[in-house]
Amino acid sequence: MQSKKENFSEWYSEVVKEAQLADLRYNVKGFLVHRPNSVLAMKKMYSLYEKALEDQGHKPVWFPAIIPEANFLKESEHVAGFTPQVMWVTHGGSEELEQKMALRPTSETAFYQMFNLWIQGLVDLPLKLYQSCQVWRHETKATRPFIRGREFHWIETHDVFATEKEAKAQVKQDMKTTEKVMHQQFGIPFIFFRRPQWDKFPGADDTFAADSLMPDGKAIQQPSTHMLGTHFTKAFDVKFQNEKGENVFPYSICYGPCIWRMLASVIALHGDDKGLVFPYKIAPVQIAIVPILKAGADNQKLIEYAKKLGKKLSKKGVRAQVDVSEQTAGSKYYYWELRGAALRVEIGQKELAEGKLTIARRDTGLKEQLTEKQFLAKLREYEKQIRENLVSKADAWFANQMHEAKTMDELKQSLGKGGFTRVPLCSDEMTGKQCADRIKAELSGDVRGVRADKKEKPSGEQCVACGKKAKEFAYAARQY
Amino acid sequence: MQSKKENFSEWYSEVVKEAQLADLRYNVKGFLVHRPNSVLAMKKMYSLYEKALEDQGHKPVWFPAIIPEANFLKESEHVAGFTPQVMWVTHGGSEELEQKMALRPTSETAFYQMFNLWIQGLVDLPLKLYQSCQVWRHETKATRPFIRGREFHWIETHDVFATEKEAKAQVKQDMKTTEKVMHQQFGIPFIFFRRPQWDKFPGADDTFAADSLMPDGKAIQQPSTHMLGTHFTKAFDVKFQNEKGENVFPYSICYGPCIWRMLASVIALHGDDKGLVFPYKIAPVQIAIVPILKAGADNQKLIEYAKKLGKKLSKKGVRAQVDVSEQTAGSKYYYWELRGAALRVEIGQKELAEGKLTIARRDTGLKEQLTEKQFLAKLREYEKQIRENLVSKADAWFANQMHEAKTMDELKQSLGKGGFTRVPLCSDEMTGKQCADRIKAELSGDVRGVRADKKEKPSGEQCVACGKKAKEFAYAARQY
Repeated sequence: MQSKKENFSEWYSEVVKEAQLADLRYNVKGFLVHRPNSVLAMKKMYSLYEKALEDQGHKPVWFPAIIPEANFLKESEHVAGFTPQVMWVTHGGSEELEQKMALRPTSETAFYQMFNLWIQGLVDLPLKLYQSCQVWRHETKATRPFIRGREFHWIETHDVFATEKEAKAQVKQDMKTTEKVMHQQFGIPFIFFRRPQWDKFPGADDTFAADSLMPDGKAIQQPSTHMLGTHFTKAFDVKFQNEKGENVFPYSICYGPCIWRMLASVIALHGDDKGLVFPYKIAPVQIAIVPILKAGADNQKLIEYAKKLGKKLSKKGVRAQVDVSEQTAGSKYYYWELRGAALRVEIGQKELAEGKLTIARRDTGLKEQLTEKQFLAKLREYEKQIRENLVSKADAWFANQMHEAKTMDELKQSLGKGGFTRVPLCSDEMTGKQCADRIKAELSGDVRGVRADKKEKPSGEQCVACGKKAKEFAYAARQY
Repeated sequence: MQSKKENFSEWYSEVVKEAQLADLRYNVKGFLVHRPNSVLAMKKMYSLYEKALEDQGHKPVWFPAIIPEANFLKESEHVAGFTPQVMWVTHGGSEELEQKMALRPTSETAFYQMFNLWIQGLVDLPLKLYQSCQVWRHETKATRPFIRGREFHWIETHDVFATEKEAKAQVKQDMKTTEKVMHQQFGIPFIFFRRPQWDKFPGADDTFAADSLMPDGKAIQQPSTHMLGTHFTKAFDVKFQNEKGENVFPYSICYGPCIWRMLASVIALHGDDKGLVFPYKIAPVQIAIVPILKAGADNQKLIEYAKKLGKKLSKKGVRAQVDVSEQTAGSKYYYWELRGAALRVEIGQKELAEGKLTIARRDTGLKEQLTEKQFLAKLREYEKQIRENLVSKADAWFANQMHEAKTMDELKQSLGKGGFTRVPLCSDEMTGKQCADRIKAELSGDVRGVRADKKEKPSGEQCVACGKKAKEFAYAARQY
């Protein structure tokens, strides 16, 4: 296995392949075959995320995967932003369709035509829906498994509110959901930025995005939530009658937690030179049971015991697997470490005789001996300990990736180190775009935005690029 | 509400609309918007089915939604059967793709090119995979929600075995899964047929299909499982080295439980003139709690109690909803009956004072009074009772839909009654097609096949159509 530290990019590719997460040999460029090890993890990630969304009132829907071109043309910024990436369906059988159809790159233009029908009065609001689905984007940038592809798996929420205030409150709520699930459950640290005006979602007033970092120090965008104002409700003539009896446009937002990309962060942040490390809750195999078979010993009894233990765990809803293959114990350990089984239970003849199990944690490598009863009673604690350890390790690393720069030279240096660099910037409105462009052109750095989770205002600092009085502290990074 | 008995077709459309299962107003022909009430039920149905498949060794994968045309061309019967229904993706952004891509109508031609890479030796077999996904078919027949559409949601399994015997055993196993989940959990009775040779899956040696009936007496195909023999492994050059060291083609099958269509049967079979009736396990709202609010009474206390009860139920994993709307109790009952909440808890001032709840079952309409403690302890029993009642009611009805005919006149009469009619048929091989064609042309009846679940052989009967000696008992029905 490659060294994650020395060559992250190759390490990542190797883990994706060797741990059988995805196969890149499908014969359509930018499209992956997702193998059971990634699907089992993502299914679990989906269900945790969906639960969190449902808990705060979102309901699931399934919209068609195709959207008529006419829908796209209704919101001018949106069509300009997405059309270059749309994959088009043009024929059904041998007939040419009357109108070409987009494979959804995102579903605003599908949802809002139905909102037009569903929303009439205050009683219909707020309307909070989500959809777990695939989307398709004809990316021209290089694709990487789970990071960027022409087909990916995400959740999109589409929420409509009577007032701007409620819409803004939901943006905050979305940030909290990101914290609760992505950070606390999956162990992915992030900063919530408000994107500069030149880097918004096409058709949004404002875009807020959770940026995490990859181990190579480059920023990766995780969920974003977009304040759409009345752009889309106007474009699709969605109106409701307010308390004064006036027909007015409601406010809307959308939020896009991409489970597929979160898996990339899980792989990258927690993995090590032995392979994958999963939080217990999302591990495809949570517990690997390895009977240590030896020539000449009574292996049958050992195997029977291991299988019985496996069944007990399965009955408790644990994803357990008993490894009765004819490999050596060492190569079985290697195999389950590579695949990120959260716990490994080793049972040899000695353990069987003594009524003890050796439990090895994948995240720390620590081993301990427990009786079966103790082990079964400790599962919840393991789950908690593993989660807390992965979160705090990732957080500690993340906290060390924060830099400051006041000049272009300093910024150049710190961008080279990776992570986020805080710089004074003249503005994050369109007037600041020139400075961001210069940072991009000269230093390959991207201005990711200003913090959305706390107030930071310069007091007299000068813009890192133009030297004018800085209105904002912005964060720059190299990015995926 | 329409009468289900008198006008099933209109009743069905009305339930789909009024219970907000789907909205048919999306502006692409044959495509539906699935609203929360259907999605919540289908999610549950998916998870029960997936669990059953995983329990017998299937693992989940996610394949791309698009398949290059070249893949389709590899299996000649398959391409002939599916090409007229394929929706084609031809452009990415403004570029024309080098090769047109099919939106998957089914995924054999995607899976088998990977099987070619994944299967080398005996150690790789059996390979049992499933995918929960949407498929797209440019249907020319009239579409009906959840029955026939251009986009639908299903599961497809693709299994490869070293021997034909193992493949055949899996076909039997698939029948058992259909029985265990579709019949026992969802309450959909069926007969397992082997389809006549002229009505096979394109590219299969044999097709086995579970046919159920709709309340109007027309047959509806539920899951089918196809014995593909070596058609697809040969077409995609999938080989493995057997114990003798020879490179040989393995045998394969596929199975397609369509959750979307099973929902159609659930709606149709269990529903009544008040609306939907769901088995408890798959009901979007399992328990509706209705506090009976009265002007002048201390409603606040009642509402608080109802909410507390709702929370207790949610904590137990029950999908409970407290109806605190300002409607009358009667219209709340009507509302939750329409939507098929499995149980309704009514609480008035009297109940609150006495510490009792009135529990109404949706499936039987029966009411009983229980203390909260008794009610909470009885949830599992309710689940079981409701399931058993729906299964046995559907079974009893289904058993009455079986007829016999020996002549075309008798067949004409019994087809008019609806249900299945057993007829002697000269053959279900291609030589019998003429007779089936005659039954179709003259009586609008379809020969669905011979029983796959038991042996039935004529002893001297003559073919219902041609009068020659009958080799089989076949079943005819009008069909969806």
